[in-house]
Amino acid sequence: MTIRVAVAGATGKLGSVAVRLIEESEDFEVVARLGSQAPLEDMLGADVLVDMTLPAVSPGIVAFAVDHGLRVLIGTSGWSADRILDLERRVAAHEGTGAVVIPNFSLGSALGTAFATVAARFFDSIEIIEAHGAGKVDSPSGTAVRTVELIGAARAERGPVDAPHTDQRARGQQVASVPIHSLRMRGVVAQQQVIFGGTGETLTIRHDTIGSESYEAGILLGLRAAATATGVTVGLDKLIDLGIAEPDGEPPRPTVRETA
Amino acid sequence: MTIRVAVAGATGKLGSVAVRLIEESEDFEVVARLGSQAPLEDMLGADVLVDMTLPAVSPGIVAFAVDHGLRVLIGTSGWSADRILDLERRVAAHEGTGAVVIPNFSLGSALGTAFATVAARFFDSIEIIEAHGAGKVDSPSGTAVRTVELIGAARAERGPVDAPHTDQRARGQQVASVPIHSLRMRGVVAQQQVIFGGTGETLTIRHDTIGSESYEAGILLGLRAAATATGVTVGLDKLIDLGIAEPDGEPPRPTVRETA
Amino acid sequence: MTIRVAVAGATGKLGSVAVRLIEESEDFEVVARLGSQAPLEDMLGADVLVDMTLPAVSPGIVAFAVDHGLRVLIGTSGWSADRILDLERRVAAHEGTGAVVIPNFSLGSALGTAFATVAARFFDSIEIIEAHGAGKVDSPSGTAVRTVELIGAARAERGPVDAPHTDQRARGQQVASVPIHSLRMRGVVAQQQVIFGGTGETLTIRHDTIGSESYEAGILLGLRAAATATGVTVGLDKLIDLGIAEPDGEPPRPTVRETA
Amino acid sequence: MTIRVAVAGATGKLGSVAVRLIEESEDFEVVARLGSQAPLEDMLGADVLVDMTLPAVSPGIVAFAVDHGLRVLIGTSGWSADRILDLERRVAAHEGTGAVVIPNFSLGSALGTAFATVAARFFDSIEIIEAHGAGKVDSPSGTAVRTVELIGAARAERGPVDAPHTDQRARGQQVASVPIHSLRMRGVVAQQQVIFGGTGETLTIRHDTIGSESYEAGILLGLRAAATATGVTVGLDKLIDLGIAEPDGEPPRPTVRETA
Repeated sequence: MTIRVAVAGATGKLGSVAVRLIEESEDFEVVARLGSQAPLEDMLGADVLVDMTLPAVSPGIVAFAVDHGLRVLIGTSGWSADRILDLERRVAAHEGTGAVVIPNFSLGSALGTAFATVAARFFDSIEIIEAHGAGKVDSPSGTAVRTVELIGAARAERGPVDAPHTDQRARGQQVASVPIHSLRMRGVVAQQQVIFGGTGETLTIRHDTIGSESYEAGILLGLRAAATATGVTVGLDKLIDLGIAEPDGEPPRPTVRETA
Repeated sequence: MTIRVAVAGATGKLGSVAVRLIEESEDFEVVARLGSQAPLEDMLGADVLVDMTLPAVSPGIVAFAVDHGLRVLIGTSGWSADRILDLERRVAAHEGTGAVVIPNFSLGSALGTAFATVAARFFDSIEIIEAHGAGKVDSPSGTAVRTVELIGAARAERGPVDAPHTDQRARGQQVASVPIHSLRMRGVVAQQQVIFGGTGETLTIRHDTIGSESYEAGILLGLRAAATATGVTVGLDKLIDLGIAEPDGEPPRPTVRETA
Repeated sequence: MTIRVAVAGATGKLGSVAVRLIEESEDFEVVARLGSQAPLEDMLGADVLVDMTLPAVSPGIVAFAVDHGLRVLIGTSGWSADRILDLERRVAAHEGTGAVVIPNFSLGSALGTAFATVAARFFDSIEIIEAHGAGKVDSPSGTAVRTVELIGAARAERGPVDAPHTDQRARGQQVASVPIHSLRMRGVVAQQQVIFGGTGETLTIRHDTIGSESYEAGILLGLRAAATATGVTVGLDKLIDLGIAEPDGEPPRPTVRETA
Repeated sequence: MTIRVAVAGATGKLGSVAVRLIEESEDFEVVARLGSQAPLEDMLGADVLVDMTLPAVSPGIVAFAVDHGLRVLIGTSGWSADRILDLERRVAAHEGTGAVVIPNFSLGSALGTAFATVAARFFDSIEIIEAHGAGKVDSPSGTAVRTVELIGAARAERGPVDAPHTDQRARGQQVASVPIHSLRMRGVVAQQQVIFGGTGETLTIRHDTIGSESYEAGILLGLRAAATATGVTVGLDKLIDLGIAEPDGEPPRPTVRETA
């Protein structure tokens, strides 16, 4: 049986890749493409809503979908811990729904974030530099925000990082105590460096993307996970087996695969 | 004849290197070491004041020196265009004085700044990342501020850089329209990257320092230039022959050497 | 009057961009597209041959063109100092011909190479890292070879760089005494780092390309220069005014523009 | 009871740090310092030999120690898989002995190697760049060799990496199918980048060391592990709990701690 998908933001960079992948697949079909002026009711009848829009409109679109019983795959940036908490409450209130939030669809990015979460327990100086094209409107990037949220969780016992003089403007924006520095430049697609500083040494985990082709494997993985999701799952790393334990020493909880 | 030098900040990182180099030299001698509590009068009798103190006190110390007829070598950071303009007026008012301001004593840094000034005329996306140890109190660094001031001058015809969304905190601090991002971390000594973005490409000029031994050649060069300085000369690049023309196409004006 | 152009390698990555740019221009037209099986006589009747083929066949195609009175724009890699010397002799023997050899059509690369040539006079440790896609067959890249040739020329007085233990395989390939390290990887388009090491510091000039769109301005510039070339001009930097003097202290000789 | 330590290479960079740390500790004491001309018998009477010498002499010194019943901490580079296999046989033949081999004493390096081992299962393009000071005689570095050996083990099922054109000299030295590129430059202490390339993206794990102070925590950890070692343990990562599972899905085997 084919899974019916509505795509919001279908003409955008990420959305158009999603549409193409769905059309090329055998188990999914596109039943609606929502442009920015389309009534939200256009998504009704679909099993899954793919939201690849803009941070300002994404929560409203997703809320409408969950309220009407759809499962959701979210690729829009800007989904902070607060927004996800709201989404978890909404999903819990509507049986048969579920959501997968993927701040970054690339495998390299998922690995980089997972490694950063492990290293976060060993260094007290941590800062992030992320660079994107001049057209990206929000900063810091959703991937950077998610990375520092995971770093913060991993440091629950160790406490905040040691980031001096963050009242000065050039020191960037602190999220979960970690300074984030956002560059917006021509000639760049997407890049992130998480830098860890210790006595006499630094460790840097860097991810570079040169094109949207790097997202294809991750989009398909996210779509398959969303089709049977219960609850809210955040991050591509939760959908693959990295063999990295959670900070508490337990094996990773692959939420989606368990329910699949 | 030996040149008599007073060193303010003689026990600091840079100041102690200066003291050692002067003592090892044949043509200079240390006649006074000014600690933070010392009366400024202690410098009187010297030919040259070396100021390697802190941004907050440096202008007062330098003003006293020039007012009393000393030449000055300034290695303290924080000497912005405004401060230098004041200094030029003060030096002009006191015959026999002169000043050399060296925001960064390393040769690699001087070359990097010179290259950045040339590249600034060819790209509209320009941002700076600078990283220093966790103990550095000011941001952005003096080298970064000087670099963007030179970039601004080189772009007098082309205009400000194209830096979007700089109202967002994560976008760093704009100086002369260029966003600067300052990292302060353990395990880092000093590093600066000037990144230029164009259609489909980026050019990066990066300088890394791993120890104060990189400053020795520059400190001696600055000291020799200060001993005969007239007017105010800013930057180590003005004291060496890079073979790079000024933006207006004329050969570089090596102020100090001409008057020496 | 329209300038008639034959393009060898017209279906390749660079060649197809050249064909498109020529067709979109008002002053050039494509009169022949030579595939790998085409007889060289197909280029006859053109004013300019554009050679964007492979290192193994490029010299033969270019020699045929010059022998038959065409001017040439060469974008194929692998044109070493020896090959260029041969080409200069050949061009000198055929009046009305001329050649422009552009190892890399990007502006950022041209600037980077020019800066590296200046810095080469100040540091004795110099090494190059260049990375390209897994499909690139030759190593080191033509841009890297040209860069070290210029570095060697700039160091005529100072002598070879200080590169220890180059008999070991992991130390890369030395060209003009400079070790070059070539990476060939998925997910990379084109990247070059020239690293200069001094006491306690390194200076790095890095260029990243993410797509062939970065070559467009350079291809058009090269084509216009080739149309009126006399002698052999090597490098995009010779076609633009960087304001950087040659190592001997004289202003840059913009060969092509002088003869235009 | 104090543990008696003989240090071979006691005047070297790493050895002198080891001597200082032992003298500052309460549970260890230095009973012999072996210079390059000393008879090996000088180490007899010690419980543990610390070997921080040179690749050419290290195996002979270590063999003598094990044959005479000492436990060993090895910090010398050049201990390849073959050498370690020999050492395992020798340790097995002498009851009460054991060895800990630490190619790199820094925590950041241990983490970087562990992350690289995980990422190795997800990408087919893998190359390493490592840079050290001009004085380092061997290449590739011991850390790089150990990293690719672990990468090879992690890829037992997936097979060799996809590294094209490695017959060309500029492509570096292949170890366990992974090309390694070694830079030896002034102004560098120690740096390693492991680069993973996939469709449209790269992931880089980079470690920078700016001084031998980064080794202190690792040397003490290694010394404590060596004092009670049985068998041969390789790598600082085996002495700390990273929470990363081995490639076969089992939890990491912390050999030394289990026997301690």
